[in-house]
Amino acid sequence: MKILVTNDDGIDSAGIDALANSLKEIAEVIVVAPHKEQSAVGHGITMQIPLRVFDYFKNSDFFGYAVMGTPADCVKMGIRNIMNEAPDLVISGINHGSNTAINIIYSGTVSAAREAAIMDVPSIAISVASHSAKDFRYAAKIANTLAIKVFEEGLPDGTLLNVNVPNVPEEEIAGLLITKQGKSKWDDIYEKRTDPYGKDYFWLKGALLEVDKDLDTDQGAVKQNYVSVTPIHFDLTDYDTYNKIKQWNIEKILNEKD
Amino acid sequence: MKILVTNDDGIDSAGIDALANSLKEIAEVIVVAPHKEQSAVGHGITMQIPLRVFDYFKNSDFFGYAVMGTPADCVKMGIRNIMNEAPDLVISGINHGSNTAINIIYSGTVSAAREAAIMDVPSIAISVASHSAKDFRYAAKIANTLAIKVFEEGLPDGTLLNVNVPNVPEEEIAGLLITKQGKSKWDDIYEKRTDPYGKDYFWLKGALLEVDKDLDTDQGAVKQNYVSVTPIHFDLTDYDTYNKIKQWNIEKILNEKD
Repeated sequence: MKILVTNDDGIDSAGIDALANSLKEIAEVIVVAPHKEQSAVGHGITMQIPLRVFDYFKNSDFFGYAVMGTPADCVKMGIRNIMNEAPDLVISGINHGSNTAINIIYSGTVSAAREAAIMDVPSIAISVASHSAKDFRYAAKIANTLAIKVFEEGLPDGTLLNVNVPNVPEEEIAGLLITKQGKSKWDDIYEKRTDPYGKDYFWLKGALLEVDKDLDTDQGAVKQNYVSVTPIHFDLTDYDTYNKIKQWNIEKILNEKD
Repeated sequence: MKILVTNDDGIDSAGIDALANSLKEIAEVIVVAPHKEQSAVGHGITMQIPLRVFDYFKNSDFFGYAVMGTPADCVKMGIRNIMNEAPDLVISGINHGSNTAINIIYSGTVSAAREAAIMDVPSIAISVASHSAKDFRYAAKIANTLAIKVFEEGLPDGTLLNVNVPNVPEEEIAGLLITKQGKSKWDDIYEKRTDPYGKDYFWLKGALLEVDKDLDTDQGAVKQNYVSVTPIHFDLTDYDTYNKIKQWNIEKILNEKD
């Protein structure tokens, strides 16, 4: 099994080191990751400027390709130009901080895995639910288990698994649940500050409004110490509304061409 | 009716000018848009550095707030700090180039409208299907018609409309269709080049593999000169796979905790 590993925290983060070294027990691992942190870049890709790629050596156990671009760029570059073939699996992480509910939309980690799904490669995004996480061993074990399972079972075309692991000792993990994307959102504000030259600038801050209590949501499950596995896809069509707005007869209005 | 207008081509683009001026016929219009082009930035938001906001005057007919950030930043900043209230509608565009099929995932234009939907504001993304589009009058008319319709009918929470207008004279428009996100994808390659110092760099290029022929897809409709209106949402859960992977019994495997 060949696995392409990437992330959005940057190639020097502890999470990707733990993930790559764990996966080496079960697969050939190729690391292609952003040269610096790319959190919250969403599914951005680099088109207006070129990409550069550097060899990155951290220690005798860790080598990877550092890309001056986004997580989605890393997956495209890794598959098209570095591996020159599709891997069996792409795994993105281990992210420092949860990617549940609305965070899925902003996440570079999830977008990298989604880019793999777009390229018809089965993929997993994996996160530990704390920005101050230090111990990635349990999450790495989950990654190995899921990698083998996905390799054996496959995933439907266009589907990826978004995995969130509680930041608690293994003995406190309550279990694993298949979940849905939660509905918790950020209550954002921009804090206004003044620079040394008297000019205003604004810094985003906010609190996650946690509305997801149920165990069948990613956010609810993780908060109650379950590992959450959410299948997601990139067909954004809202089929309920598709049927509903056909009744608007807006097609008729415009088709009459005044 | 108050409408917040944004885009991803930048506040100085012709498309946003046409849109804002058209919407002034039916609403109070506030323009908050990126200070420079932000195509393909996806749903990125700016958290690691602060934002700055500048007044932008193009001519006597066009004033807006230029934000040194992404399209999604502009919507958050516009609603939270510039308007200090939710508008009745957010419209993002008029984009130079289609946002159909897989392009929805990468699009800053669509992500701006999606950010509005996340903030519970009804929204529309609108694009003309050519990067070299010069005449935005028909698309602007469509924007006005849909703005009134959405204002009257509302949209379900979390849903936005992604609109693509063929780049043909109005008399060649075949009609308007409610569509689904197509499956066409990019066949990407990175072109390898060498800089003046002998170092390699890589530039993304590619062709869209157009597999969508049916009129019920965004890509298929636009290619056959129909205006395409696709309802999309930000619940990425793949419900079919959700039910399917429950049968993996992976919950059981991990719940046994070795």
